[in-house]
Amino acid sequence: MGNNVRNASGKLGILMPGLGAVATTVIAGVASINKGLAQPIGSVSQLSRIRLGKRTEDRNPLIKDFVPLAKLEDIVFGGWDVYADNVYEAASVAKVLEQSQLDSVRDVLEGIKPMKAVFDRDFVKNLDGTHIKSESTRRELVEAVRQDIRDFKKNNDLDRIVIVWCGSTEKYMESGDAFSSLAKLEEAFDRNDQQIPPSMVYCYAALKEGVPYVNGAPNLTCDVPAIVELAHEEGVAIAGKDFKTGQTLMKTIVAPGLHARALGVEGWFSTNILGNRDGLVLDNPDNFKTKEVSKLSVLEEILNGEKNPELYGDLYHKIRINYYPPHGDNKESWDNIDIFGWLGYKMQIKINFLCRDSILAAPIVLDLALFIDLAQRADMHGVQEWLSFYLKAPQTARGLPAEHDIFKQLMKLQNTLRHIMGEDMITHLGLDYYQELIETIQ
Amino acid sequence: MGNNVRNASGKLGILMPGLGAVATTVIAGVASINKGLAQPIGSVSQLSRIRLGKRTEDRNPLIKDFVPLAKLEDIVFGGWDVYADNVYEAASVAKVLEQSQLDSVRDVLEGIKPMKAVFDRDFVKNLDGTHIKSESTRRELVEAVRQDIRDFKKNNDLDRIVIVWCGSTEKYMESGDAFSSLAKLEEAFDRNDQQIPPSMVYCYAALKEGVPYVNGAPNLTCDVPAIVELAHEEGVAIAGKDFKTGQTLMKTIVAPGLHARALGVEGWFSTNILGNRDGLVLDNPDNFKTKEVSKLSVLEEILNGEKNPELYGDLYHKIRINYYPPHGDNKESWDNIDIFGWLGYKMQIKINFLCRDSILAAPIVLDLALFIDLAQRADMHGVQEWLSFYLKAPQTARGLPAEHDIFKQLMKLQNTLRHIMGEDMITHLGLDYYQELIETIQ
Amino acid sequence: MGNNVRNASGKLGILMPGLGAVATTVIAGVASINKGLAQPIGSVSQLSRIRLGKRTEDRNPLIKDFVPLAKLEDIVFGGWDVYADNVYEAASVAKVLEQSQLDSVRDVLEGIKPMKAVFDRDFVKNLDGTHIKSESTRRELVEAVRQDIRDFKKNNDLDRIVIVWCGSTEKYMESGDAFSSLAKLEEAFDRNDQQIPPSMVYCYAALKEGVPYVNGAPNLTCDVPAIVELAHEEGVAIAGKDFKTGQTLMKTIVAPGLHARALGVEGWFSTNILGNRDGLVLDNPDNFKTKEVSKLSVLEEILNGEKNPELYGDLYHKIRINYYPPHGDNKESWDNIDIFGWLGYKMQIKINFLCRDSILAAPIVLDLALFIDLAQRADMHGVQEWLSFYLKAPQTARGLPAEHDIFKQLMKLQNTLRHIMGEDMITHLGLDYYQELIETIQ
Amino acid sequence: MGNNVRNASGKLGILMPGLGAVATTVIAGVASINKGLAQPIGSVSQLSRIRLGKRTEDRNPLIKDFVPLAKLEDIVFGGWDVYADNVYEAASVAKVLEQSQLDSVRDVLEGIKPMKAVFDRDFVKNLDGTHIKSESTRRELVEAVRQDIRDFKKNNDLDRIVIVWCGSTEKYMESGDAFSSLAKLEEAFDRNDQQIPPSMVYCYAALKEGVPYVNGAPNLTCDVPAIVELAHEEGVAIAGKDFKTGQTLMKTIVAPGLHARALGVEGWFSTNILGNRDGLVLDNPDNFKTKEVSKLSVLEEILNGEKNPELYGDLYHKIRINYYPPHGDNKESWDNIDIFGWLGYKMQIKINFLCRDSILAAPIVLDLALFIDLAQRADMHGVQEWLSFYLKAPQTARGLPAEHDIFKQLMKLQNTLRHIMGEDMITHLGLDYYQELIETIQ
Repeated sequence: MGNNVRNASGKLGILMPGLGAVATTVIAGVASINKGLAQPIGSVSQLSRIRLGKRTEDRNPLIKDFVPLAKLEDIVFGGWDVYADNVYEAASVAKVLEQSQLDSVRDVLEGIKPMKAVFDRDFVKNLDGTHIKSESTRRELVEAVRQDIRDFKKNNDLDRIVIVWCGSTEKYMESGDAFSSLAKLEEAFDRNDQQIPPSMVYCYAALKEGVPYVNGAPNLTCDVPAIVELAHEEGVAIAGKDFKTGQTLMKTIVAPGLHARALGVEGWFSTNILGNRDGLVLDNPDNFKTKEVSKLSVLEEILNGEKNPELYGDLYHKIRINYYPPHGDNKESWDNIDIFGWLGYKMQIKINFLCRDSILAAPIVLDLALFIDLAQRADMHGVQEWLSFYLKAPQTARGLPAEHDIFKQLMKLQNTLRHIMGEDMITHLGLDYYQELIETIQ
Repeated sequence: MGNNVRNASGKLGILMPGLGAVATTVIAGVASINKGLAQPIGSVSQLSRIRLGKRTEDRNPLIKDFVPLAKLEDIVFGGWDVYADNVYEAASVAKVLEQSQLDSVRDVLEGIKPMKAVFDRDFVKNLDGTHIKSESTRRELVEAVRQDIRDFKKNNDLDRIVIVWCGSTEKYMESGDAFSSLAKLEEAFDRNDQQIPPSMVYCYAALKEGVPYVNGAPNLTCDVPAIVELAHEEGVAIAGKDFKTGQTLMKTIVAPGLHARALGVEGWFSTNILGNRDGLVLDNPDNFKTKEVSKLSVLEEILNGEKNPELYGDLYHKIRINYYPPHGDNKESWDNIDIFGWLGYKMQIKINFLCRDSILAAPIVLDLALFIDLAQRADMHGVQEWLSFYLKAPQTARGLPAEHDIFKQLMKLQNTLRHIMGEDMITHLGLDYYQELIETIQ
Repeated sequence: MGNNVRNASGKLGILMPGLGAVATTVIAGVASINKGLAQPIGSVSQLSRIRLGKRTEDRNPLIKDFVPLAKLEDIVFGGWDVYADNVYEAASVAKVLEQSQLDSVRDVLEGIKPMKAVFDRDFVKNLDGTHIKSESTRRELVEAVRQDIRDFKKNNDLDRIVIVWCGSTEKYMESGDAFSSLAKLEEAFDRNDQQIPPSMVYCYAALKEGVPYVNGAPNLTCDVPAIVELAHEEGVAIAGKDFKTGQTLMKTIVAPGLHARALGVEGWFSTNILGNRDGLVLDNPDNFKTKEVSKLSVLEEILNGEKNPELYGDLYHKIRINYYPPHGDNKESWDNIDIFGWLGYKMQIKINFLCRDSILAAPIVLDLALFIDLAQRADMHGVQEWLSFYLKAPQTARGLPAEHDIFKQLMKLQNTLRHIMGEDMITHLGLDYYQELIETIQ
Repeated sequence: MGNNVRNASGKLGILMPGLGAVATTVIAGVASINKGLAQPIGSVSQLSRIRLGKRTEDRNPLIKDFVPLAKLEDIVFGGWDVYADNVYEAASVAKVLEQSQLDSVRDVLEGIKPMKAVFDRDFVKNLDGTHIKSESTRRELVEAVRQDIRDFKKNNDLDRIVIVWCGSTEKYMESGDAFSSLAKLEEAFDRNDQQIPPSMVYCYAALKEGVPYVNGAPNLTCDVPAIVELAHEEGVAIAGKDFKTGQTLMKTIVAPGLHARALGVEGWFSTNILGNRDGLVLDNPDNFKTKEVSKLSVLEEILNGEKNPELYGDLYHKIRINYYPPHGDNKESWDNIDIFGWLGYKMQIKINFLCRDSILAAPIVLDLALFIDLAQRADMHGVQEWLSFYLKAPQTARGLPAEHDIFKQLMKLQNTLRHIMGEDMITHLGLDYYQELIETIQ
């Protein structure tokens, strides 16, 4: 199948709705890396190796040398934001990176100015945008975004574009009738239905332009039947949702480990403190609910209390997020895990993660952008479940339960890349090594 | 291949050198489970399910219903110890299980009295055994142990026996010339070489009797060429070494997660406090060194600084074990992990595990005993790498680097079971689900 | 003044509104101690020594041998509760003490049955009492409680009684006009004002009977001018409010230490998980607010940002309590303290307290009962600020700021005892030792 | 007595043997503060207030406005070191302060060059000094140091000098016969006894010059009878030993709190990781022992198991220090405290302190220098126990047990200042407030 992937020639545009802490950290980072000032730590596409063939063959190329990805120097960034600050100004406010680092790529950052955003305060109550599109209907807003995309492509002489949502968590909603089919969604647009969230305006516009869309927030956006249908109709790749960083990242690492060893879990209490804009938005209960739903399902799927009632049948799982300004972007999480072992004896695991929210998110944005561009060039349309490795609430084929175990997700990612390039799957069986050994000895 | 596995008919003897905290917890636990008083939590063989076929087939039998394992009620326990206490007395001293739990199976436990141990204080300085075999040469000690095995089998009317070492960590040694081939080892026995550790006396005796041997301590024992050669010559399965519990368990869960995400690790500091006999033995530097070597290699292999110099090239890894009587068997570990992400920004993870050493080890002993018995019945001889899932320093085919990532180890275990029973390997690729979906839609 | 204290002759009744986890732990504990089965750990009155005179005199008697306190064997317990369970039953449900410990004093515990409680669900929404007084007005309820007190005294042949509130946290209220003077309060009773909380019914009744009253919850109860006035009018000692256990205890230990060293504090985040009835009640926002107000003031007073703006002017203090059933009475708190030192450089302190709520509260109940009985016998009427050592939100003379530093509170407690017994105050100056030394040398 | 203190007129020289991380942080800090670029956070002398009179008088001046201390702008720094780097270079290597902060006072720092040090590698094995005095006998070295002191005073036109040891921990020694009296010490110098540690050379020289000496390391130095005798003979103030920072600071905050509440302590395990030069020196067992002895006594004195056997009779106390380069000067400590309460029920406290070693030590150096200069001007000679607030192993009058409780130490410090200035002692009795209240009400 490797032969069928089109090459990554020309320039790739990465457009991000929401040029806040995460997006500016991506942009400043790639600029620094391109100047040779820093390394793309945390980026699997850039730094991870993939094993090919048998252990003894010792073939472990970097992923970027194995599959045809866009080069970092071929990326052009842009985006939309509700504030008019250029990327240098926005990054300085976000205080994720040191000022001296921002200054070293100041010229690049100052050149990137946000386009006016699609904004409806009803969806994000704790923010108050000032750099907003003036179109009055959802349909008109779609057209405005489509025009933005076309202009960006033309002005920057791009070969391809992908969009990665880096904006806020919108208020909680459920997938209603209006989103149950493409036809229904079109009707909703026709009557300017205010239920359509801003994020869906971007997504709809992207797909109509043939641009892949990745959803980094827990918003429903592309997780509804109407959008999936549109993606297939237009032949475009989509992926979502909610970047898996910090506490949920640790949870999908540790929970599979406990499950692997058949250790019981009686309770899991997770609390977070963070002081950035994300924390401020999530201080509103409507927005927190969207996040909470995304975070809660993780454990249920991995531990599966229905199938393992002796071990996980009584699991009590609670998640709290607290806005705590002293920490800024330095998110801190604390997990208390009440486990039990042999004969039911109790033990506890406590994990304190002093992380940096945007530092963990930035390489995910980069990888998702590069991989969904790859998928598009490999003619893989619709939901890209193999990117679930990066996502808190992975979108799957309808009816298929999501896989949250990060190690199975990694295997899926790697075997997908092997499959694309026509290499053998890895199963870790490895009995053949011993067969040979026995033959050697005998 | 499933058809080639002999059935687990008749009774299985499990003999353990070292009837201390771990072994008595296994025995009391199985007795409690057989009386319906407790659950075998932590035992993969008893409680874990294995996925067969595609996700949508929903075939997830318990492992014990999938492969032919000995039943818990068919197990007969026995062992050797340097103290003469019966298992009820030893378990009461160990204070791992509540006294009321021990009392509920007191009759079973009192019936199990240790055979006299092979002991050489030069190998375990902080212990002072009193229930010791009087034979004066290593060769005579081998014969005495072989006779013990034969007597135990006959007296208890057993079909099969396996041995699992649950004794102390011996002092550090390296595999010298005396252990480089079976012929050399025989010569060493002939000259009564005092370098031969007590554990190797048990192992040699076991293999000569056709009994599989599992090594639960970091002692070299069956990890030397001479013993591997003997295992193949006698057609016996062996596995080792060092039960993976507590801190190392957490390490082989968390490190693969960091590696998966290409997050850098600059330092990993691990400290332990424990107050049981194991802690006392490890308070001696010679014995600690054996343990330290076993624990250190884990990170090096998983993170592989040579292949990933930007991420793990400067890793500083330090491990400390502290004898702290107030905690008894309630081992507590604390890990500080200094990681770095995007552009090199630093973060920290702190893990505090309030575990119970023997509670974590007991189900491992059970699983290893049942699985190595399975391997023997499937005619899988020599090193059983697929059991590395349970072991801190897995023994592999000579020259083959060990796999420490617990999730790859689990995959190896599961795929080996699938292979034994003639089922398909699982690769987590899963593109077929989407192919079907696309066909459905189109 | 020591001569003026009346002796503790005869029996002392301790009545507790609320025979839940805390009260039953006190009762079972004193019964166990009286049988010689346990020690009154955590009780300053029973186990702490007090230094008298100079360091070199080496006079350090136990407090109970220094001041005339009631003896533990002279105590008779009783109380009221909204459930009819006797103390053995209630303690078994609370699961604070091991069942075997309760069984060893079962006869004593079964003999103590709660009197019917004064209950108004409007004040504690998450509870649903069934063992309730039927009187229909607040005034009638007062009379019923007074009759209970008189009956209890007569039936048990008591010399004296004290009351310690061990019931739930009531919903938040502020001290309104109805509580601004005794005359206003009498009017409120006359019109059966539903604002009068149940706790105030008990307190009013106690004072009318000449019985000292201690308030263990953050309820306003005796903290209003009307009740203080009544205490002076009746010549009765009162003290409050809110037992200082767990996280706030740690806070009033650590904060004075940071303040002592002039270390700045930028943020203090405190979160709790607990699963007992207290946790359930506090899951209701109205009740949590009462608790939160009580807990928040602690830091403000100790650190005093107004007087020390460079150090504490920007302090951000946040407290969370989470209901988490898996932990039961085993409350766990986690504090993250963001401090800064020399030139403003930042540091962090993280404290994880695995405590037991009722185990920490029980000796406080005992000490407060014994000390307020002492105060009453020493004719110290009205607010007993010297007992602030035990209380989260100490009641003081009107207009006098409360002292929250536990070490100053301890000094106040000890110097009050010295004062009562006519001993010298301790100032820790100690220059005299050196004067002597110099004279010796010269 | 306030009238008897001589004014702090003219310039004060602060000389420090050891211009490493701590000393350079003090110097750079005072330079920054004098330029208005930073605040002396952590300095009690500069930022703490002292309460005078009754609570209601509201008299709380800053200490520096209450007692006559040298002003920061009147301080001149100097010192000795085994490396020739000037203070700017040494501070840059130490990496405690940000480079931009050092650059802002670069001119000041570059002007301070170390004098050649007294060094004997036998006392600090892990260091290898290159900037060493060439004198061959201890007596000659004393004379060389005395000349340094006189030159420094003259060249900088100073009114007074104090010396604060900021050098390394020397190897463990006990106070032998050679140090038992001044006469014996003189004889030891006469025979050039190699037992005399370098630190004692500095101290002896200082006292001979009438210069107060503070010992910031756990070295015995001025803690021997010979030096105390010399201090009285010369009329000079001395204080020691070992700056109380980090873990021991927390210990002397928390332990008094547990003791105050009569909570039992069964075990206290303390471990540290640090990666600076101090950590390297302490990696040598001889030097660690000196530190360990200093750190261990703290708990024994505060908790006093002999006087409180039910509570602290079985205390198991263990301290570990681990050299861990990834953390540099960012020392991290972790304490596990096993406590027990009512009836013996067990609880745990875990404290994780992410501190900065030199940031905590720097203001202590400043305060000790300023306060011992004050003592000297107040004619307080010999051991200054009132400075024990800052010290891990306070020196006291012979035979007088040290007080380790930081809150009693603070009271001692404050009451000494009040005493010097003729103010009333504070006892926290406070009954008078209530007497007035009662009179008001009646």
